[in-house]
Amino acid sequence: MRVWPLPRLPEIRPGDDLAGMLAERARAGGVAPGDVLCVAHKVVSKAEGRVVALRSVEPGPSALDLARETGKSPALCQLILDESRRIVRRRGGTVIAETHHGFVCANAGIDLSNVGDGLAVLLPRDPDASARRILARVAAAVGGRVGVVVTDTHGRAFRRGLVNVAIGVAGFAALVDHRGGRDREGRTLVATDQALADELAAAAGTYMAKDAGVAAVACSGVPTAASPGGVGVLLRAAEHDLFRGTEDARP
Amino acid sequence: MRVWPLPRLPEIRPGDDLAGMLAERARAGGVAPGDVLCVAHKVVSKAEGRVVALRSVEPGPSALDLARETGKSPALCQLILDESRRIVRRRGGTVIAETHHGFVCANAGIDLSNVGDGLAVLLPRDPDASARRILARVAAAVGGRVGVVVTDTHGRAFRRGLVNVAIGVAGFAALVDHRGGRDREGRTLVATDQALADELAAAAGTYMAKDAGVAAVACSGVPTAASPGGVGVLLRAAEHDLFRGTEDARP
Repeated sequence: MRVWPLPRLPEIRPGDDLAGMLAERARAGGVAPGDVLCVAHKVVSKAEGRVVALRSVEPGPSALDLARETGKSPALCQLILDESRRIVRRRGGTVIAETHHGFVCANAGIDLSNVGDGLAVLLPRDPDASARRILARVAAAVGGRVGVVVTDTHGRAFRRGLVNVAIGVAGFAALVDHRGGRDREGRTLVATDQALADELAAAAGTYMAKDAGVAAVACSGVPTAASPGGVGVLLRAAEHDLFRGTEDARP
Repeated sequence: MRVWPLPRLPEIRPGDDLAGMLAERARAGGVAPGDVLCVAHKVVSKAEGRVVALRSVEPGPSALDLARETGKSPALCQLILDESRRIVRRRGGTVIAETHHGFVCANAGIDLSNVGDGLAVLLPRDPDASARRILARVAAAVGGRVGVVVTDTHGRAFRRGLVNVAIGVAGFAALVDHRGGRDREGRTLVATDQALADELAAAAGTYMAKDAGVAAVACSGVPTAASPGGVGVLLRAAEHDLFRGTEDARP
C-alpha cells in the first residue's frame, strides 16, 4: 500500500468547488482507478458553508447550563446541543455527544482550531453525500472507480490520543466481513469484521496530523469491494453498545 | 508512506526464535533504518509459549458462573478471569475485560481462532518487552534505528468492525503531542495528541486482516521520534475515562 498527500489546497471558502479542486489534484497527484482518497472533513465543511461565527449564536438556557458546568463558551455549547441527538457524557471540560449522524465524539465534532477567530466548523450535514459528490468528480478525472473517505479525528473511550476515522464513505465497502473466510493457505482469517475505511483513514492521519495544510491523502494498493459505500455500517447503534448508557444531560 | 508485508513466517511454536526470523525477513523484505515494523501479537504469543490447551484448565466457581451467563466454555472463562484485572462489561455472549496490562478488549484478548483445536492464545505477558526484543534483532539486521509495534485487533465502544491497534511499542514515541504546534504555513496542527502507533497498526491491519499468514508488516516514510517506546502512553487510566464505569462482574 502506498499512502501519499495530494498537492495542497488553497484556504477553502463556502461555495468553493472543492470536488473540482480535489479532482484536479487527484489527477496531478497520480491517483489511479482503484485508489481511495481520504479527505479531511474540515475542507468539506468549509466548502459546504458549515462555518458559524460564535458571536452570531444566541445561547438558550440549556446551553447556558452546559456552559456553566463545563467552562465552555455558551455559544459553543448551543452549537453542541444543536448538532447532537444527546449528550453521552460530560465531566469537567469534556462533553461527549452523539451527533445527529450517530457519531459519538467530543463536542459533537465541532472544531474551533485552525479557523478564523471566533469561528466554529461543524461537521458536514451528510458526510456520505459529500463523499459521493467528491467521488463523482475524482472518478471522472482519473477515468475509473475510486473510493472516497471523509475523515475526522476522534478520541477513543479507553485509549489516549486521537486517530483519524471515517465519517463519510463512498464507492467501496467500509466494513469487510471476512467471517468464515480462509486465507490462501487455508488459515482462518484474523479480523472477521474489518473496519477498512477506518484503517485507511488512520493511515491517512499520519499525514494530516502533522500538517494542517494536508487535506487529501491518497491510498493505493488496497483491494476494495465496489459498493455504494456509506459510513452507517461502521456505527454501532446505541441499543447495541455496552458503554453509551442512558445518561442524557440535555436539560 | 509505504506499507508492505514481510515474507511469510512458518507456523510458530513455543521457543522459536521469532526475533531472529523477523530480523532475517526484515532484511530480505527491504526494511531500512527509520522504518517501523508491525508484528501481529499472535506469533509473539506463540513464540513466548502463551498458548494454553483448554482441556488443561480447571474452571473455578467464578468461571462457571461467567460461563453460565455468557454461554462461553468454562475453561475460556477461567482464562479470561486469570488474564484480567476486572470484567468491564458482560452482556449476552460478550465479555469486555480490562487485562492486567490495562487493555480494555473482548475476552481479555484471548483468541481461539486460527490455532489448533482446543487451544487458546493469550496476549504476551509484557508486549513492550516483546517489542524491545524484536527491535534489538531487527535493528542489528538492518543496521540502524527501527520502531516495532506489537498489534492486536480490537473492537471499539461506539463503532462496528475491528481495527488493528498497538499493544506493545519499542523504539519510537507511540503518542505524538503536537500541542501548540504549527505547520510550515503557520496553521495550527489538527491532532494535538496523535496516536501514531495506533495509526501505523491500523495501516498494517489492511494486510493482516485479509491473510492470517501475514504476521509482520513494514511501514516506511513516517517520521518517528526516537524514544524507548512503551504502549502505556496510549492507555487511558480507568479513573480518567468516562465509560469504563464501576461494574465489576468478578464474583
